[in-house]
Amino acid sequence: MSKKYLLTPGPTPLPPEVLLACAQPMIHHRTDEFRKIFGEFNEGLKYLFQTKNGVVTFAASGTGAMEASVVNLLSPEDKAIAICGGKFGERWVELCKAYNVNVIPIEVEWGKRAEAGEVQRILAEHKDAKAVFTTLCETSTGVVTDIEAIGKIVKETDAVLVVDAISGLGAEDLQTDNWNVDCVVAGSQKGMMLPPGLSFCSLSQKALKAMETSKLPKYYLDMKKAKKSLDKTDTAYTPAVSLIVAARESLRLIKEEGLENVFKRHKMLADATRNAVCALGLGLFSNTFCNVVTAASVPEGIDGAQLVKLMRKKYGVSIAGGQGHLKGKIIRIAHLGYMEPFDIITGISALELALSELGYKVELGKGIQAAENVFSNQIK
Amino acid sequence: MSKKYLLTPGPTPLPPEVLLACAQPMIHHRTDEFRKIFGEFNEGLKYLFQTKNGVVTFAASGTGAMEASVVNLLSPEDKAIAICGGKFGERWVELCKAYNVNVIPIEVEWGKRAEAGEVQRILAEHKDAKAVFTTLCETSTGVVTDIEAIGKIVKETDAVLVVDAISGLGAEDLQTDNWNVDCVVAGSQKGMMLPPGLSFCSLSQKALKAMETSKLPKYYLDMKKAKKSLDKTDTAYTPAVSLIVAARESLRLIKEEGLENVFKRHKMLADATRNAVCALGLGLFSNTFCNVVTAASVPEGIDGAQLVKLMRKKYGVSIAGGQGHLKGKIIRIAHLGYMEPFDIITGISALELALSELGYKVELGKGIQAAENVFSNQIK
Repeated sequence: MSKKYLLTPGPTPLPPEVLLACAQPMIHHRTDEFRKIFGEFNEGLKYLFQTKNGVVTFAASGTGAMEASVVNLLSPEDKAIAICGGKFGERWVELCKAYNVNVIPIEVEWGKRAEAGEVQRILAEHKDAKAVFTTLCETSTGVVTDIEAIGKIVKETDAVLVVDAISGLGAEDLQTDNWNVDCVVAGSQKGMMLPPGLSFCSLSQKALKAMETSKLPKYYLDMKKAKKSLDKTDTAYTPAVSLIVAARESLRLIKEEGLENVFKRHKMLADATRNAVCALGLGLFSNTFCNVVTAASVPEGIDGAQLVKLMRKKYGVSIAGGQGHLKGKIIRIAHLGYMEPFDIITGISALELALSELGYKVELGKGIQAAENVFSNQIK
Repeated sequence: MSKKYLLTPGPTPLPPEVLLACAQPMIHHRTDEFRKIFGEFNEGLKYLFQTKNGVVTFAASGTGAMEASVVNLLSPEDKAIAICGGKFGERWVELCKAYNVNVIPIEVEWGKRAEAGEVQRILAEHKDAKAVFTTLCETSTGVVTDIEAIGKIVKETDAVLVVDAISGLGAEDLQTDNWNVDCVVAGSQKGMMLPPGLSFCSLSQKALKAMETSKLPKYYLDMKKAKKSLDKTDTAYTPAVSLIVAARESLRLIKEEGLENVFKRHKMLADATRNAVCALGLGLFSNTFCNVVTAASVPEGIDGAQLVKLMRKKYGVSIAGGQGHLKGKIIRIAHLGYMEPFDIITGISALELALSELGYKVELGKGIQAAENVFSNQIK
């Protein structure tokens, strides 16, 4: 017998309420029954996104919604700035290039965060920039960006601020309206506790205005059609019905717990994980602490990829390895979505056992002790 | 108590095996466990698509895969021919226009089918056409196109033949390789007996060659990346894991029944439905008989939209009404996917009751009798 534990930064584990909603008999989407669900789902999204404005939904992975923000807010040869300090920041650059957008990358060392002052300097140099693309939590490194500070800067310009919050939404605070974010991009399979297959864009008034003049080609990812479907509670194309039915459920769970408590829980799990890996002598990889995923450097002489594999094969615990040039050099333990203290305890326990098996000198239970020290103070 | 019955041309009802697969705990997509499922799923797709070539999958509605075929096979200002005899044929024209493709529409009266000779004539006039876009079953009218005949014509030219088989695949025979179809576009929520959220493109050698020179912009719907994921059984972006797990199950069910039997069952259900609506004095709308959906003209004095509403609200039976200029004029009863004789009996019974209630003179049971006459000969 072997149970499976999912501590990866997406997909994340699903609550039983969501699993059962996924197994409901199919309903047709052009009915009052679906419209009611779709309406409640859209209200739930506004709560989660902390916005009074509409959030449009696509049947697509997160990358689909990232592309939607590019093709709906810009025109060919427009200038855009992209903050690029990891795999997902690079995706903004690739997307802009695919659509002939003149992209100015702000290169940040992987594991470090972009500073708002640097964004301000680049924006002053490129006053004609139409958009600033950035990432809330860079899943490849565990870095969290100070969106509030960047929002204050971009607000004063003509550019729209687009934040890839795919892995961060529902784990890190992101006050869409208060922080002047024009478009928050998100995906279902992270903090939203859903299967992958849905992605989202919030749209500020400034974003809606940019949409009006955008000339990049689009059809399936056309936000005007998606926006219209919000107003009519009727979708342009066949929506991913079962995922929307499930999303209504997970959004209800988030509302019930309360966003503030959701963030607190994520912070507690993140603190415990960081304390545990440090107690085991591993180094934290990033210089900011995000509540989504802990990236840790593997000890000298240990192959990170082998460590991840051993944890998965022998102990049934899935964590993530490094991406790009970090392959084999770091491990990433997610504390994201439907997670509570004993998920972390399990993950750390498997890490201790696997490290020990790979010949790393580790005092068994030491990481657990460090995690429990956090939990014993904080579990109410 | 009111049970619900889904006789709409997508989404269609889900088998219990599929519902249960949808409710499985989430697994990570970069694991051997998922790769095995993805491999089996891809083999199942080849069987269903009747192709030896690969079938690429997108986390998107059917329209997403339609767009993928346009943006991956063509370049700006390329010439393309689109057969256009209903709402979904029109979508090809809209898609081409959105991407600055010079589209020559072959306009066919709604309810009639395009003749292969006409396609040949237009192709001879436009020898520089790079693609012919058509529809296997035009869901808005119930018309089925003779793809085999068109395949023979397009094969002799430089154009690729792209068939929107979103509603037809798994109900109508479509011999992708034998009939020289270069790209078959399909969606999950029809004959595949799955929730909406996945879509597919098969790719012939000719299509792969067209992909090499295509210059239209794309990123999320990039078929080269999707094709690579087939070879590596590793997806470019986070796949819709739960839908792929469910799809492996529905593809297994299709294989178990055997494609030939699946087509026979659909034909029997279609025959019974057509006989029933004719026995009730309704006229068949289309001049070809498709196995997906029966489009019938509503009797003089009856509002088709009201009929559909009454069947849904009072009897729990969902059928579809007319789209576009056919709104209120026709009804569409689907016999598609996870359907058997008693689903049709239920649908016809509700139709008889609702017609009667709306004041149409109908001998109750007469439609059922006509349907049973088909079933009594054919159910083994």
